[in-house]
Amino acid sequence: MSHSTSGLAAAESAKRRLPPISVLKFGGTSVKSMARIQHVAEIVKERLKHGKVLVVVSAMGDTTDYLLKLAHQCTKNPDQRELDSLLSTGEHISITLLAMMLKTMEVSARSVTAYQLGIFTESVHTKARILDIKTENLADAFETCDALVVAGFQGVTANGDITTLGRGGSDTTAVALAAASGAKYCDIYTDVDGIYTSDPNKIPKARLLDRISYGEVVEMARLGAQVIHPRAVELARQYGVILRVRNTFKPEHEGTSIDGGEDMEIYRSISGVATDKDQACVAIMDVPDQPGIAARIVEALAKKAIVIDMIMQAFHPTAGLNNITFTVASTDLPQTIKILEELKSEMGAKAVHADEDIAKVSLVGAGMAGQPEIAARLFSTLGNAKINIKMISSSEMKITCVVSRGQADKAAKLIHDAFELEKV
Amino acid sequence: MSHSTSGLAAAESAKRRLPPISVLKFGGTSVKSMARIQHVAEIVKERLKHGKVLVVVSAMGDTTDYLLKLAHQCTKNPDQRELDSLLSTGEHISITLLAMMLKTMEVSARSVTAYQLGIFTESVHTKARILDIKTENLADAFETCDALVVAGFQGVTANGDITTLGRGGSDTTAVALAAASGAKYCDIYTDVDGIYTSDPNKIPKARLLDRISYGEVVEMARLGAQVIHPRAVELARQYGVILRVRNTFKPEHEGTSIDGGEDMEIYRSISGVATDKDQACVAIMDVPDQPGIAARIVEALAKKAIVIDMIMQAFHPTAGLNNITFTVASTDLPQTIKILEELKSEMGAKAVHADEDIAKVSLVGAGMAGQPEIAARLFSTLGNAKINIKMISSSEMKITCVVSRGQADKAAKLIHDAFELEKV
Repeated sequence: MSHSTSGLAAAESAKRRLPPISVLKFGGTSVKSMARIQHVAEIVKERLKHGKVLVVVSAMGDTTDYLLKLAHQCTKNPDQRELDSLLSTGEHISITLLAMMLKTMEVSARSVTAYQLGIFTESVHTKARILDIKTENLADAFETCDALVVAGFQGVTANGDITTLGRGGSDTTAVALAAASGAKYCDIYTDVDGIYTSDPNKIPKARLLDRISYGEVVEMARLGAQVIHPRAVELARQYGVILRVRNTFKPEHEGTSIDGGEDMEIYRSISGVATDKDQACVAIMDVPDQPGIAARIVEALAKKAIVIDMIMQAFHPTAGLNNITFTVASTDLPQTIKILEELKSEMGAKAVHADEDIAKVSLVGAGMAGQPEIAARLFSTLGNAKINIKMISSSEMKITCVVSRGQADKAAKLIHDAFELEKV
Repeated sequence: MSHSTSGLAAAESAKRRLPPISVLKFGGTSVKSMARIQHVAEIVKERLKHGKVLVVVSAMGDTTDYLLKLAHQCTKNPDQRELDSLLSTGEHISITLLAMMLKTMEVSARSVTAYQLGIFTESVHTKARILDIKTENLADAFETCDALVVAGFQGVTANGDITTLGRGGSDTTAVALAAASGAKYCDIYTDVDGIYTSDPNKIPKARLLDRISYGEVVEMARLGAQVIHPRAVELARQYGVILRVRNTFKPEHEGTSIDGGEDMEIYRSISGVATDKDQACVAIMDVPDQPGIAARIVEALAKKAIVIDMIMQAFHPTAGLNNITFTVASTDLPQTIKILEELKSEMGAKAVHADEDIAKVSLVGAGMAGQPEIAARLFSTLGNAKINIKMISSSEMKITCVVSRGQADKAAKLIHDAFELEKV
């Protein structure tokens, strides 16, 4: 959060007025019924034994989908300012119900919308970023209540327009509020126990991690294993807020703690295996070898907000032609093909190929850099099982292999076994 | 609206910036589906031919009931601050959908909540009164849009808490905005054609009035014929705003115009006959004749927000005892009896009687004062038909007779005929 120079002193003085605060965030499934809201209220009340509590909540269950449906009954392309204002009512409803419930339990509670609290964002609709939080208002609110219930996912512009934060919005609200109130932890309550070495529904041996680094979680999320939105994790890293992913229905469990992982390398190289089947591979064949060809493709796709991954270029020296191959999200495939077909003649390319029979299987670990034996073991594990690797990409914290979609789960399981991830 | 002294100049200057504005209000049934919202948008678009439009809307159909149900699933006695905040989402949803719909029709539209516009109220929940409207914000908004869609029924306190205005809230919002923006008219769109001489479902001869005075409408509303809430009418009278009650589904009709009725007496003494069957009569018998007895009863009932009407006291000189009789709304009867039973021994009274077999039939007209022949014709009409009059009460603009409930409709019809109300 960037404070204006004049606002900075006020914010600092407000921060000194703030008591120690626990910051808790509950997602839509955690508040989808009155029984669940009561359960959340009980968790909040229990936490009050250790000081004041700030709770961020999402909209109840499928309220957001219902509101979106209303908007789309109205028009295919709803005005974004109005859509944001409409969607904000989802969280507005859930905060009032949780505050009401807390009041019936004799808790001094109070709900606030982003408008009321002063969660200021950019003037961008449907995916605004938080610019500033009025710490003074936080300090004022906690002078008259013990549990402050804040609407996630929403913000307000300097002009008073309501915005929404887009994907991962409520997580982001919670982290921003933890940062603004100087809280050490931000507890993200969800419907799983925490972060696992792999998807426990597919790999029964998958182990719950008690700790993982920000970087690893971001990698895992980007690779398809999303428990918390990478954007919220980045914000937590930036402000040094320790995230704890916990199960709403097992509040006594500590869950997985996400921090800078400074001393983590010494005890663990690898944190997990992630699988992402919602991917497709696209290739544009026989492009003349000219500088800037790849950039033109990336730019044309970026204009339509299509993110590409694992781009690779193979050059045939004899023909002087390139093949450019990359992966995109499956949902972006039809539009990607359309754009490439347009570019094809313009660039003098011969053909556009698409392959939907792919999946990404990735090994993630903060301590894998500089350990080539990890890659070697990964490739031989797949090779011994006759699983063909279609593409490879690696970074500081991950190695991703593209394999046939039908073999992805088997590949993940073999890798989990080979690296003995079930053991601490 | 009371402006602070310093705010007054700003408000006046803002008022000068305001273009001529049509103020329209649509109730919940007028926006209960997307098809109806589209119809409302068409009415708004048509009106834009004559200048800018401010539209006040209620929550869609039964949204408010749904939100109340949610609150009552949570607790029998929801916290009122939270309840008001929760209920405000009903209008918040409908304004965004109407603004979206207008945008699809190429109308430069914008939705605003009471919070965003600055409709300031008392710090009282569930029935707040409007204190001030930021005319500056109105002027600013109309500089960037042609149709401003405002949430009815809601307000905000100086502290930023969300309030609701209680019964007749959206009508009141519309009138207050008409007053604040200097509009001459405030059009209340509803599902009837306007105000009739009597209930057209019961008296087919009932005639649609093209004009009626504020005072008569208030009397008729209080007597059971409610098309527009008396509170909104009082506010319109105070600010000289002419109300027009119109049918959403016959927008080409002028409806009924409600104004001060200054020149009305010359052409019409009587405007209508109203019937109210949701009434009960209560009597406390043989109360010792002491000063202040009636006041004690009224006070005890007022503490529970029970409004009494048609109170009368009959004194038996020989016994030195009083019978006190009055009417209350049927729904208040059980609690009224309970309170009177408690007061009975305390006051030395003998008995409490209740009579549910009653109805009020009232003749309303701004021009009836000083015309005793009207009362005479009324009583003889009922007497000739052998309808027994249980109680009578009269004021400047109305005469009310309490009759047996089963005879009320017949009485109203006879009176309508006797005074030839079907004729202009």
